[in-house]
Amino acid sequence: MPQTLSHYDTAGRVRMVDVSAKPAMARHASAEAHVKMNARTLKALHRNPKGDPLEIARIAGIAAAKRTAELIPLCHPLLLTHADVEARVVRDGVCLTSAVRTTGPTGVEMEALAAVAVAALTIYDMCKALDRSIEITNLRLLEKSGGKSGTYRRRSDL
Amino acid sequence: MPQTLSHYDTAGRVRMVDVSAKPAMARHASAEAHVKMNARTLKALHRNPKGDPLEIARIAGIAAAKRTAELIPLCHPLLLTHADVEARVVRDGVCLTSAVRTTGPTGVEMEALAAVAVAALTIYDMCKALDRSIEITNLRLLEKSGGKSGTYRRRSDL
Amino acid sequence: MPQTLSHYDTAGRVRMVDVSAKPAMARHASAEAHVKMNARTLKALHRNPKGDPLEIARIAGIAAAKRTAELIPLCHPLLLTHADVEARVVRDGVCLTSAVRTTGPTGVEMEALAAVAVAALTIYDMCKALDRSIEITNLRLLEKSGGKSGTYRRRSDL
Amino acid sequence: MPQTLSHYDTAGRVRMVDVSAKPAMARHASAEAHVKMNARTLKALHRNPKGDPLEIARIAGIAAAKRTAELIPLCHPLLLTHADVEARVVRDGVCLTSAVRTTGPTGVEMEALAAVAVAALTIYDMCKALDRSIEITNLRLLEKSGGKSGTYRRRSDL
Amino acid sequence: MPQTLSHYDTAGRVRMVDVSAKPAMARHASAEAHVKMNARTLKALHRNPKGDPLEIARIAGIAAAKRTAELIPLCHPLLLTHADVEARVVRDGVCLTSAVRTTGPTGVEMEALAAVAVAALTIYDMCKALDRSIEITNLRLLEKSGGKSGTYRRRSDL
Amino acid sequence: MPQTLSHYDTAGRVRMVDVSAKPAMARHASAEAHVKMNARTLKALHRNPKGDPLEIARIAGIAAAKRTAELIPLCHPLLLTHADVEARVVRDGVCLTSAVRTTGPTGVEMEALAAVAVAALTIYDMCKALDRSIEITNLRLLEKSGGKSGTYRRRSDL
Repeated sequence: MPQTLSHYDTAGRVRMVDVSAKPAMARHASAEAHVKMNARTLKALHRNPKGDPLEIARIAGIAAAKRTAELIPLCHPLLLTHADVEARVVRDGVCLTSAVRTTGPTGVEMEALAAVAVAALTIYDMCKALDRSIEITNLRLLEKSGGKSGTYRRRSDL
Repeated sequence: MPQTLSHYDTAGRVRMVDVSAKPAMARHASAEAHVKMNARTLKALHRNPKGDPLEIARIAGIAAAKRTAELIPLCHPLLLTHADVEARVVRDGVCLTSAVRTTGPTGVEMEALAAVAVAALTIYDMCKALDRSIEITNLRLLEKSGGKSGTYRRRSDL
Repeated sequence: MPQTLSHYDTAGRVRMVDVSAKPAMARHASAEAHVKMNARTLKALHRNPKGDPLEIARIAGIAAAKRTAELIPLCHPLLLTHADVEARVVRDGVCLTSAVRTTGPTGVEMEALAAVAVAALTIYDMCKALDRSIEITNLRLLEKSGGKSGTYRRRSDL
Repeated sequence: MPQTLSHYDTAGRVRMVDVSAKPAMARHASAEAHVKMNARTLKALHRNPKGDPLEIARIAGIAAAKRTAELIPLCHPLLLTHADVEARVVRDGVCLTSAVRTTGPTGVEMEALAAVAVAALTIYDMCKALDRSIEITNLRLLEKSGGKSGTYRRRSDL
Repeated sequence: MPQTLSHYDTAGRVRMVDVSAKPAMARHASAEAHVKMNARTLKALHRNPKGDPLEIARIAGIAAAKRTAELIPLCHPLLLTHADVEARVVRDGVCLTSAVRTTGPTGVEMEALAAVAVAALTIYDMCKALDRSIEITNLRLLEKSGGKSGTYRRRSDL
Repeated sequence: MPQTLSHYDTAGRVRMVDVSAKPAMARHASAEAHVKMNARTLKALHRNPKGDPLEIARIAGIAAAKRTAELIPLCHPLLLTHADVEARVVRDGVCLTSAVRTTGPTGVEMEALAAVAVAALTIYDMCKALDRSIEITNLRLLEKSGGKSGTYRRRSDL
């Protein structure tokens, strides 16, 4: 395991990691987030007669995954071959899980995290008139595979 | 307090709230997030000889605040007159607090939340080679003022 | 009525119209488009069990309205106070109608047109595996009001 | 031929098609659109002494092709190796034809359509002070080749 | 005159200047740049039979002015009411001059500079196959007016 | 060496070069720029107690390199595998040098130039309250390698 931040050179200056020599490989990552809200707001989310608010959040998350390299300064641009966000209502809010794939020289962890982060913010936006105390927690990587550093996997407690 | 989601019309179709008739007012919002990491990673964040990784995260958060309306589908575009992100190292990670201002017909809660969310993701990006289990929690609104719905304030436990 | 293109100066060079001296006024515009598809595809659009494909198209149109000044080179940036796209299934396809509002020095015709254009393209994208011959027609301004040039209104035949 | 929308999973939730397993292949697509305007406006388009308004429309269309994945929510990002828009004046307006190429796992139909759509909107923008009744019609795919679904070709009537 | 950088707070942390309390005023800025190229390339720029390469550069500069706040991290977003770039062929290359206007709480110097910078890069792009030694010099502010700091004006030597 | 501009077809219409048939190769480019400022401003740049203003400029340059195809109308989108900007204080200002890499069908000269251009503008932005006469000069390509046209190299005089 490295002991220093990969985005800093030996003089301590910020840098983008050079992935020019890394081979293009199939890569996958998944992340999750939990949007905690009170019972009244969660109920309103369900009462919507026609459109499904969670579908809007999913769309926003997918779109954000595609734009991750614009948001995170030292992220490499990547061509995503797949991006998805799943949203499911739980007892105290909404759980979001993303899945992102590419074939490229570096991984898609940041894309997976950006997808759930923006999906969660979109749920906040739609519910904020009812409840400003909504909280986003457990925003974290669930899994990544592909690439030299191998597979990482954590268990979701959500 | 409203009982239904403001972003849905009476037929249940998603909509952008019409703020055409709302007066331009000074508005402020503040949000926070907590980036939890292990002691070894936190130490590496400090060992950096010259540049300050937290400054990069702050910049990324400020830039994200300016682009919130591109990320959140039903957000109104606003001209921010100020956006800031403060980052401070705590016992078990980094605490981020944003402050955003505008003069306009609607508030800047989403901009404040987007700022800390993207700043937190940027810290994850810089530290991920050391620790993939970093977790973002307590992403939430601290305060908003201005506008018809008045002032909201919660106490930070961070 | 002017006899020359407003986006060209007297020497024939392209230019952005200078609206510095124009007062900020409430402005509104509405546009429509017709997405013509065969009966089989239209039926598939309805068979979708849960999400509503037309909601995705509406969201894409609203997002495009907000980014019109990035797409159309000589368009002025404007802060939209409202943007909406309505989609309704008709005998031979889908009719899209947009409504956009701002308070500013120039009108929102291009935003209204961009909204229905991108909503229509999004419907094409979702249906293209079933039918590549889908055609977008009648993409046109329905109404604009506000500003020195007054109100324009055409009757929709859709 | 598929019977269901490819952008929806079996539960009816919107999704981006997973193209991770599809090989990178040379792909081409072409689309067209017709901008119908009255004789007086068409004449003004010609009277411009120096710059050519149609060149601006062509540039806007090429730029839009490059940004298609930002506009259409479920479109995959692709690296275009070529994008062109041809504009020719006809009896009752302007005909636009695009040609787009890539080497990748999925096709460029949406890029070809986005290019002519935005080029057509740009012509509207430049002429709107003269004529607000300009109408965009026949926005449709002319041809696509490459990929598993083979070649599609329709005859242009423009 | 201030003695310290306005974009840093007293602790030395980067910041966006807070312009919330500044009144909206009419503001103008103008900048210039010189694209130096050899005689053979300059001649090719003229030999182009139909389109005018300098018009493309002008369009790119105008579009860049509108997106300045996305490029420069601490720049405030502003609604430009006018942006123009003039290009004229001189003995040893091309001179570019921009003019940008807004009504807002802060000035448009960066927008004026971004416009000529991107216009100059666009000329480089179009000519680079002929001459890679093209050089951009004298990229600088010519004039700014409006706002508390008053009017600045320098003489162009180009 | 070609005699005509590569971005124009034989009829003189602007075009994007078709690189569909060019093989993906490792490509590198480097560019430089000089930000000239007076002694007082240069001293203030150094006096900053904590953050390093030059790090912000470097970040802005790296981000701009990633977005070059959005800024320059006829540039091909490319997936950068590396982008860096080095900033060093010299006697009369700051020298910026970029290095950009990709594996693709066309080169990264424009990305290297865009990186130093935007980094230079960011320095201007941070110093402009102290000195509006700051000038950007010597913005030019230092080196490019890879691709059919081979290696180009110029000596820096900075």
